[in-house]
Amino acid sequence: MRDRRGLGLTVAAGRLELLDQSRLPHVEQWLAIETVGAMLEAIQTLRVRGAPLIAIAAALMVAVRAEAGDDRDTLIEAIEILRSARPTAVNLSNAMDVLRRSMIGSDWRRALVEAADDLADDDVALCNAMGEHGAALIAGGERILTHCNTGGLATAGIGTAVGVIRRAHEQGKGISVWVDETRPLLQGGRLTAWELAALGVPYTLITDNMAAALMARGEVDRVIVGADRIAVNGDVANKIGTYGLAVAAHYHGIPFAVAAPHTTLDPACASGADIEIEQRAADEVRGVSGSAGDLCWAPTDAPVANPAFDVTPAALITHWILDAGVFDRAAVAADALREAAQRA
Amino acid sequence: MRDRRGLGLTVAAGRLELLDQSRLPHVEQWLAIETVGAMLEAIQTLRVRGAPLIAIAAALMVAVRAEAGDDRDTLIEAIEILRSARPTAVNLSNAMDVLRRSMIGSDWRRALVEAADDLADDDVALCNAMGEHGAALIAGGERILTHCNTGGLATAGIGTAVGVIRRAHEQGKGISVWVDETRPLLQGGRLTAWELAALGVPYTLITDNMAAALMARGEVDRVIVGADRIAVNGDVANKIGTYGLAVAAHYHGIPFAVAAPHTTLDPACASGADIEIEQRAADEVRGVSGSAGDLCWAPTDAPVANPAFDVTPAALITHWILDAGVFDRAAVAADALREAAQRA
Repeated sequence: MRDRRGLGLTVAAGRLELLDQSRLPHVEQWLAIETVGAMLEAIQTLRVRGAPLIAIAAALMVAVRAEAGDDRDTLIEAIEILRSARPTAVNLSNAMDVLRRSMIGSDWRRALVEAADDLADDDVALCNAMGEHGAALIAGGERILTHCNTGGLATAGIGTAVGVIRRAHEQGKGISVWVDETRPLLQGGRLTAWELAALGVPYTLITDNMAAALMARGEVDRVIVGADRIAVNGDVANKIGTYGLAVAAHYHGIPFAVAAPHTTLDPACASGADIEIEQRAADEVRGVSGSAGDLCWAPTDAPVANPAFDVTPAALITHWILDAGVFDRAAVAADALREAAQRA
Repeated sequence: MRDRRGLGLTVAAGRLELLDQSRLPHVEQWLAIETVGAMLEAIQTLRVRGAPLIAIAAALMVAVRAEAGDDRDTLIEAIEILRSARPTAVNLSNAMDVLRRSMIGSDWRRALVEAADDLADDDVALCNAMGEHGAALIAGGERILTHCNTGGLATAGIGTAVGVIRRAHEQGKGISVWVDETRPLLQGGRLTAWELAALGVPYTLITDNMAAALMARGEVDRVIVGADRIAVNGDVANKIGTYGLAVAAHYHGIPFAVAAPHTTLDPACASGADIEIEQRAADEVRGVSGSAGDLCWAPTDAPVANPAFDVTPAALITHWILDAGVFDRAAVAADALREAAQRA
């Protein structure tokens, strides 16, 4: 299998290592993962997270075991064990399907390893394409605001919104980044802050409720976020808080971009009204928990709303940054996203 | 001195007790405060907080000592000790000035106690007036969103924005409240949630970044917030996050009210541009600390912006709820606030 070096996963001479994300940002510990059981544990305890990265990590684990000489039945069992690690992440299940289909011919061992490598390479390539297209939008010195974590800790490549930011930084554009902490789960404060520091991208951490005031003071030039699902009319479901940012950016005339691969387009979804919003556990809002510790600062029985996502209508979005290129509102209104989803 | 029973302070038969706010919401402990030293400690360790309530608590403490028979020099020294407890809170210094001036005549001991009682009664009366005026705006069944803590834990009375909400609830209007947690210091999650529960007002706690999405779903009928300073043109400085709420309310056509006593009007402040915004410590944004515990979830050296307040322009405000009545945008444009400040 091929060597690779990502922010959250590396393969060198057939040896797979994961950065233990459950200990970030305070401890940067790489774990050598040598067995299917160890990978299952790593996925289930969130040592590796981000739907694309989980899928790639699981696929590469199967490839490691194939190269180690495990027999066919053992490998098929490994695929099914890993598929069940996080049953709701569709990327993982799709990747396991790809591996399973690769094992048809007589040269199945080589085909399996190649399929896993290709899955990882494809993810890297999609990120690179988005990064190039998106970075072309960005002028020198821009101060970019982002939300949640959308970088190399969530994908096998440079990421989506953070990938665009990283590419613009590497092109010497002298950008800086406002990082929303992203309550309740703090992916911005815990992961994006760490990731931008590791990349050497200048950033400033803020609480989510500061973004609009920074816009009013002329301190935000652009907003770039990722997406969990994009309807064919351009409406975008993304981490809670995205919609409020879009409203504020619209009010201040600040361009608002969504970066996502074509695999995030949902041809079955006509508009945001079709997207169901998951409600998560009340304790996430009553306090915080994670490797840094657990706290409940609200009344322990406080009634809570905890929608994990919100929907931003296309009318508030300026640019859709896909691997196929950047689409503006006119293109999206002319059904460019439906065509992009069909081509994919 | 007069008996009184507030949410955060009581006086009964000359005995003063404070609710220890540093232990809320998990522990409701009342502390009998019998000495100036104990009150100083209570103020400095935030057992009592909220600029109006601190001033009233300190004034009533001096009255307690006057009734206990402390001599004139000891009482004057007590006033100066308490004045220095939180040097930046102007209410405290103003209240100590009032006490000091009351001690001129031969009947100074009685005058001092009466001055302290009057300060507390005035604060209660201002809150009641705002509550009555504001509650008249509210229709049956409204779902009201509020930010930070503006209730009986911050004043001697029913509060400002929360006072309006409380009065509408007591009038049987069947309202419910969305409580912003109010990062970084979580006054909403810790204190407003506790206070509304204690009052029996139905509420739901949310993270600050959920407000706009709730507005889009038609689940917010009105926003009511307090104010730290109001310029004569109607611009309002308040807890960080207020401006973003006002932008979102404006976008969705939702009325946005500010409730504050006339003492919050600043005749020397022509517009929000004259208001300086305090930057607070970076660690407040990198994590959280308080009686529930201390956590840092971000990189320990993460660069941070932490403006404590923001400024909401008058153009985004629908109603100014003062003790003198409710002013709309037309009245404010016709200089009603300048006149209200001068009359006060």
